[in-house]
Amino acid sequence: MSEAVKLVEKEFLDYVKKMEAYKEALGLIYWDLRTGAPKQGVEQRSEVIGMLSTDVFKMSTSEEMESYITELSSNELNLSEITKKTLLECKKEYDLNKKIPAEEYKEYVILQSKAESVWEEAKAKSDFEMFRPYLEKLVAMTKRFIQYWGFEGNKYNTLLDMYEPGVTVEVLDQVFGQLREKIVPLVHSISQSDQKLETNFLFERFPKEKQREFSLEILKQMGYNFNAGRLDETVHPFATGLNPGDVRVTTKYDENDFRTAVFGTIHEGGHALYEQNISTDLIGTPLCDGTSMGIHESQSLFYENFVGRHYSFWKKNYDLLKEYSEGQFDQVSLDDFYRAINESKPSLIRIEADELTYPLHIIIRYEIEKGLFNDELEVKDLPKIWNEKYEQYLGVKPENDGQGVLQDVHWSGGSFGYFPSYALGYMYAAQLKNAMIKDLPNYDQLVEEGNLLPIKEWFTDHIHKYGKMKKPLDILKDVTGEELNANYLIDYLYEKYSNVYQLK
Amino acid sequence: MSEAVKLVEKEFLDYVKKMEAYKEALGLIYWDLRTGAPKQGVEQRSEVIGMLSTDVFKMSTSEEMESYITELSSNELNLSEITKKTLLECKKEYDLNKKIPAEEYKEYVILQSKAESVWEEAKAKSDFEMFRPYLEKLVAMTKRFIQYWGFEGNKYNTLLDMYEPGVTVEVLDQVFGQLREKIVPLVHSISQSDQKLETNFLFERFPKEKQREFSLEILKQMGYNFNAGRLDETVHPFATGLNPGDVRVTTKYDENDFRTAVFGTIHEGGHALYEQNISTDLIGTPLCDGTSMGIHESQSLFYENFVGRHYSFWKKNYDLLKEYSEGQFDQVSLDDFYRAINESKPSLIRIEADELTYPLHIIIRYEIEKGLFNDELEVKDLPKIWNEKYEQYLGVKPENDGQGVLQDVHWSGGSFGYFPSYALGYMYAAQLKNAMIKDLPNYDQLVEEGNLLPIKEWFTDHIHKYGKMKKPLDILKDVTGEELNANYLIDYLYEKYSNVYQLK
Repeated sequence: MSEAVKLVEKEFLDYVKKMEAYKEALGLIYWDLRTGAPKQGVEQRSEVIGMLSTDVFKMSTSEEMESYITELSSNELNLSEITKKTLLECKKEYDLNKKIPAEEYKEYVILQSKAESVWEEAKAKSDFEMFRPYLEKLVAMTKRFIQYWGFEGNKYNTLLDMYEPGVTVEVLDQVFGQLREKIVPLVHSISQSDQKLETNFLFERFPKEKQREFSLEILKQMGYNFNAGRLDETVHPFATGLNPGDVRVTTKYDENDFRTAVFGTIHEGGHALYEQNISTDLIGTPLCDGTSMGIHESQSLFYENFVGRHYSFWKKNYDLLKEYSEGQFDQVSLDDFYRAINESKPSLIRIEADELTYPLHIIIRYEIEKGLFNDELEVKDLPKIWNEKYEQYLGVKPENDGQGVLQDVHWSGGSFGYFPSYALGYMYAAQLKNAMIKDLPNYDQLVEEGNLLPIKEWFTDHIHKYGKMKKPLDILKDVTGEELNANYLIDYLYEKYSNVYQLK
Repeated sequence: MSEAVKLVEKEFLDYVKKMEAYKEALGLIYWDLRTGAPKQGVEQRSEVIGMLSTDVFKMSTSEEMESYITELSSNELNLSEITKKTLLECKKEYDLNKKIPAEEYKEYVILQSKAESVWEEAKAKSDFEMFRPYLEKLVAMTKRFIQYWGFEGNKYNTLLDMYEPGVTVEVLDQVFGQLREKIVPLVHSISQSDQKLETNFLFERFPKEKQREFSLEILKQMGYNFNAGRLDETVHPFATGLNPGDVRVTTKYDENDFRTAVFGTIHEGGHALYEQNISTDLIGTPLCDGTSMGIHESQSLFYENFVGRHYSFWKKNYDLLKEYSEGQFDQVSLDDFYRAINESKPSLIRIEADELTYPLHIIIRYEIEKGLFNDELEVKDLPKIWNEKYEQYLGVKPENDGQGVLQDVHWSGGSFGYFPSYALGYMYAAQLKNAMIKDLPNYDQLVEEGNLLPIKEWFTDHIHKYGKMKKPLDILKDVTGEELNANYLIDYLYEKYSNVYQLK
């Protein structure tokens, strides 16, 4: 009996391994498309992507997969831990894909790709009405999908669960409520403070090649393994883990603002450390990946903000930066530099927002999405609501929908429920930091010495190595002993910005 | 009836398209592995390669493929030209793979990979005895395969046909005989001539970045399309056509010998022009590829020798080269430069050989392979025979087997029958040149003006666009009106080297 199960288990793992091989090939193709693939080959490459994606989709919903799920689920006791969790991942995927009637899914895929191109044009023209019918259709179809998938409590929970398993509206209402309540007044008091930071020196010419060399130094300091990775240049920075031995980072160089590359590299480097340090036992399974969008973002934001924008980090690296630059910082004290790179200013565009105001951008999107999927808001009202919220929370008002409700690509691709992960990651990061300093009480000193390896090792032991073996909220609980708690982030922001702006 | 066939035809083409998609993904993975893929990811990437290759192999030998071949072959009249030729390619592949018992094929694949790693060590240690048992086994298995596959005339013909369809021992004996008979005395008279060329200036420091810029200029001049390609750096230069819109070239930079990069780039550029200009109608079929190794090599060698080592080419580009270099040519006349880059000196290593002596390296390998597969030679005798032939044809003698019989990787991978393509390509090139100048009588002038586009267009019209729609010897016949004729190459070499060495 058990022998027969072992055999099915092996077959199942081989089957899954094959799916992962296709995904790895796809990962490389996507990386290549973004790092310099010749334009004229793209159309044919899309065919290749289509074939491989179809293979993966078919395998994830095949009768063979169904029978693995049925057979193995009823024999769980005999399975290894890895098989059990792999089975759960496959079942989740199977259910998601199978519950939608094939015809509707096809219609949805076509709508998605159409909506993305319409959105691009609508954004350029700041023409919400042009995009509105597509967004309405996307929302309507997603609502229907929620009916197929089922939901517990709030309908929007089903969407949240796709990106951040276990996180619900109930949780988010609480933590985002707290965040908003505390951050909005801090943002206002900074706006009204008479402290004006000098930042002009940030924008002098810093040659690309030198930025690259500095970025490489910092990645090395972080413990990024160059035998298992490489740094390339792209329009939008990203990190991609093809397997733990091949995790690539890209960055963008702006010769008039070195911060783009430096903080972009550190951010993506944080993602990459996660993927490089997943246990190799998980290779060839869907568990060999970050456990959620939010935990992934906790790693990138931790390095970007708690390392890269930390005073101690620049105590160590400011001289190095000066060496690579062309003299733009020669007359600037470390303190002035530190304050300049931590300037906070309410703005309209999420991806350009600073550490302090960023969560408010996310909260606005969260509130809107929740309203949409609970039938409290209609698509046609979004521009008005968007602008009101920006004025209310950030004190700024978009001049047009291009810099307002149309700014993000996510909705045009049907990605509802994704935005909250960004702010969750930030809260996770602050809470994890609090736990980390119990083990590494000399954290500031380590950063000041450029000795970042103990930090990486701590994350590897507590998070990285597990891949998807543990759910995000379980990781948080196991590592910090607490449920999600917004106060760590709030306290951090208060302390940091009181200091930067010398408030009170 | 015809409707039913149309349906099967469409299904077959979709099936083939899918195989080609896998091959394109594999092509990208190989390119990536050679251009900077992180080392630690390679092992897992090999798994991916294994999965995709197995997919292709299984599809090429499946029952589904068999039934396409059977059904469509009996309805040939109703098929498009492209389908007909695709079918022939698939049938050839099917037969090759199916005729070998699965067990033996598996044994062979394992032997291959083992033999390659043993060869590497044996070469480093100059220890032929270490490699001998593996080579004996490879030859023995290949002989058995020839029995399975069948042969016409000479047994070695079956191997030749895999790389150069239609070319037989009968053909090669004749043309290689002629070549050997004419080139050997020319090589000897150069060795005995009192003309000693000055070449020291070739080996001064030429910075890599500048070599790259010059290489890019030359590729542009050749008509290489950068919207459908890119130039990267690798240890061994190569060109790879993923699809006609994505044909990548790599080169190698030696800062103490600019010729490596320049002639390497031109050579690979020649291959790339072929792949970039295959008709897009053939995309998604196995016809979207060079028709044979030899015709491919005719393109690379044409550009390398008849363009890149042509006096007119440097009349155009010598000043440009001077601009990019750091002064090493300032005191060197164009004539001296031209003679230096065309120096001929008998040497031991094939891949370092010059234009004139290169064919002799190939002829030696051809004679040995032919002997092996006709039971006239035994593996154990190869070192002795190798050294005798080198002494006889080239007047040089290897000091050890590392620089002798063990120098090439080909045999360790079981690639017998491959070598002749190199020399065939050279003969094709000379014969094609003769036909080309009937249409482009101002050939030298075009080259001197850097106006290389008419040359590319001529090749596209006569060769490139057809991909595998035409067999190599049919192309040669259609374009030149003749069978393969060694005299064009012989005449070219006599004229060129009499001039370079001012013989007679």
